[in-house]
Amino acid sequence: MKFNIALLAGDGIGPEVIDQAVKVSDAVAQKFGHEITWKPALTGAAAIDAVGEPYPDATHEICKNADAVLFGAIGHPKYDNDPSAPVRPEQGLLKMRKALGLFANVRPTFTFPSLLDKSPLKRERIEGTDLVFLRELTGGIYFGEKGRKDNGDTAFDNCVYTRAEVQRLAKKGFELAMTRSKKLCCVDKANVLETSRLWRETVQAMEKDYPEVEVSYEFVDAVAMRLVQWPNSYDVLITENLFGDILTDEASVISGSMGLMPSASMGAEVSLFEPIHGSYPQATGLNIANPMATVLSAAMMFENFGLMEEGKAMRDAVNKALEAGVVTEDLANGGKAYGTKEVGDWLAANV
Amino acid sequence: MKFNIALLAGDGIGPEVIDQAVKVSDAVAQKFGHEITWKPALTGAAAIDAVGEPYPDATHEICKNADAVLFGAIGHPKYDNDPSAPVRPEQGLLKMRKALGLFANVRPTFTFPSLLDKSPLKRERIEGTDLVFLRELTGGIYFGEKGRKDNGDTAFDNCVYTRAEVQRLAKKGFELAMTRSKKLCCVDKANVLETSRLWRETVQAMEKDYPEVEVSYEFVDAVAMRLVQWPNSYDVLITENLFGDILTDEASVISGSMGLMPSASMGAEVSLFEPIHGSYPQATGLNIANPMATVLSAAMMFENFGLMEEGKAMRDAVNKALEAGVVTEDLANGGKAYGTKEVGDWLAANV
Ligand SMILES: CC(C)[C@H](C(=O)O)[C@@H](O)C(=O)O
Ligand SMILES: CC(C)[C@H](C(=O)O)[C@@H](O)C(=O)O
Repeated sequence: MKFNIALLAGDGIGPEVIDQAVKVSDAVAQKFGHEITWKPALTGAAAIDAVGEPYPDATHEICKNADAVLFGAIGHPKYDNDPSAPVRPEQGLLKMRKALGLFANVRPTFTFPSLLDKSPLKRERIEGTDLVFLRELTGGIYFGEKGRKDNGDTAFDNCVYTRAEVQRLAKKGFELAMTRSKKLCCVDKANVLETSRLWRETVQAMEKDYPEVEVSYEFVDAVAMRLVQWPNSYDVLITENLFGDILTDEASVISGSMGLMPSASMGAEVSLFEPIHGSYPQATGLNIANPMATVLSAAMMFENFGLMEEGKAMRDAVNKALEAGVVTEDLANGGKAYGTKEVGDWLAANV
Repeated sequence: MKFNIALLAGDGIGPEVIDQAVKVSDAVAQKFGHEITWKPALTGAAAIDAVGEPYPDATHEICKNADAVLFGAIGHPKYDNDPSAPVRPEQGLLKMRKALGLFANVRPTFTFPSLLDKSPLKRERIEGTDLVFLRELTGGIYFGEKGRKDNGDTAFDNCVYTRAEVQRLAKKGFELAMTRSKKLCCVDKANVLETSRLWRETVQAMEKDYPEVEVSYEFVDAVAMRLVQWPNSYDVLITENLFGDILTDEASVISGSMGLMPSASMGAEVSLFEPIHGSYPQATGLNIANPMATVLSAAMMFENFGLMEEGKAMRDAVNKALEAGVVTEDLANGGKAYGTKEVGDWLAANV
């Protein structure tokens, strides 16, 4: 097969980890007889510096016309302490999500046996954890009307959801549950919020179409607790944008494998794949960043094209590298630390 | 001194744990020469059953005219699976918060050395944790306009904050920080929400009035992570209603002492004190519920009257009971389990 992949390296360590993912993807493509054309494009602080905005039209054109988007990381300290600055990298992110219609953010949290001791949780709590959040990504309070009144003394943010938005996300959740343990948890705050009541009634109405899926409904505060207590009691969870923002980040640290977690943001036309970690500006250019989460994101991309073996080859290479100790300093545990590039080379040679 | 305390026992184990807190409070009052008049009033499912609503006017009158409110727990399984039922115990809770103006929910999370092993977190992560959340409790998305449009297919919840609401809560936060380690963390989502930007600019403007307090600003998703990673890096945290709902519950389970955590909800006129645990319907009437969180809530009540020694006497009694193993089955660890009443008797005898 032939693919066009938009390549949005972004800021900080983004370009370095993206380079490794490209290398490993090319190795897999070669092995399985595919051809990838990479289309680099600007985003984040890098794009603000170059053209004055974080998600330029030219970048959008490239993404829209690509078969998928591979994304590094964005964010730069010069924008950190002023959330009200007129142009910020995050705005590009939100604009991109909306413009590309990336409505379902898929965030797996799983454990690597060799990394279990890195978890802040006791081993018996975390062992066997393998859950996936589907976070709604283009609606809710992120995109509702917001502003000020009373000379700036009153602020508001409106949270809005339509039944169709909930159905679209929940459908992905049911489908994903069918490929896994057939357990689906809908996370809401239906005891307080009208939007949550819409979520709950919409999901309840869809239950009959997936009679094999066992659906539970839990309040967001209860899930925030149980994620720490018994993360391995969850499988597929669906939730709205803001709850998903908070809970997926909480879930990511419990595994001890945070630096390795990939993600996907699915749209109707095009989907985007990115590591969940940030742009770690302090590590920029030092060849110390861990490229594995980005490589695993590329694996999700292959799998999303239906190329399961290709994805598995990449995952297996990461597992082998972890077992062989071919890791960057974050995972070296006092042992030898490899460079970002060296880990990428090793993975490319071992897919 | 003489006090009138409104006594809202509520549902499930509420009445049993409240009975013990009354007993221990009376013992302390006697020892220090105070006189407490308890004014019982209906709330929760118990109130719905009796008079058709969860926070009756008669109860409000009693609370309004009391020096403080001691609250047990509310909630009953018959209301659990229908968040859209017309009358629900939680609605009484929200109505009570608003009517009494309980704008600042104070939620400490601390550890008891003897309970450290109950934490899902590794000992080195949790040891020394002693943090307090101040959650805004009468504003935000809980109380903004909510409803449906498009024949019910669109739902909305408006989140609104005024500068005065933020100032009122933040003032409590700064004052609390001054009595502790002088560290204050403002938790928001100022990279996305206009209400959060109002929070942040308001708190920033107050910094000059508390030059000794070191203020940090963190995004809610980052806090959800760091609470699990390094809970002992926090001291006083202030946040808006919904973020507070999620984060205080998350914080409560990390300590391993969840069943012992008290809380206060402060208003301009009257304040309310309650354990953070729920109504545990399954344990109702079995004399197995742990009364310590309610006793510690009563200790917070005394301290809020400025009666520090009285509060300390109650805390010390709880510590002694834990050390002596005079505990209910949740803490018995295979050893002897005392009944709710027996623990209450022991505490009353030891203040
Ligand atoms: C940077 C920010 C706008 C973004 C979000 O809140 O969605 C981030 O936290 C994320 O989860 O991707
Ligand atoms: C029962 C519910 C309405 C309530 C809330 O969300 O405030 C509860 O979760 C709490 O934290 O006291």
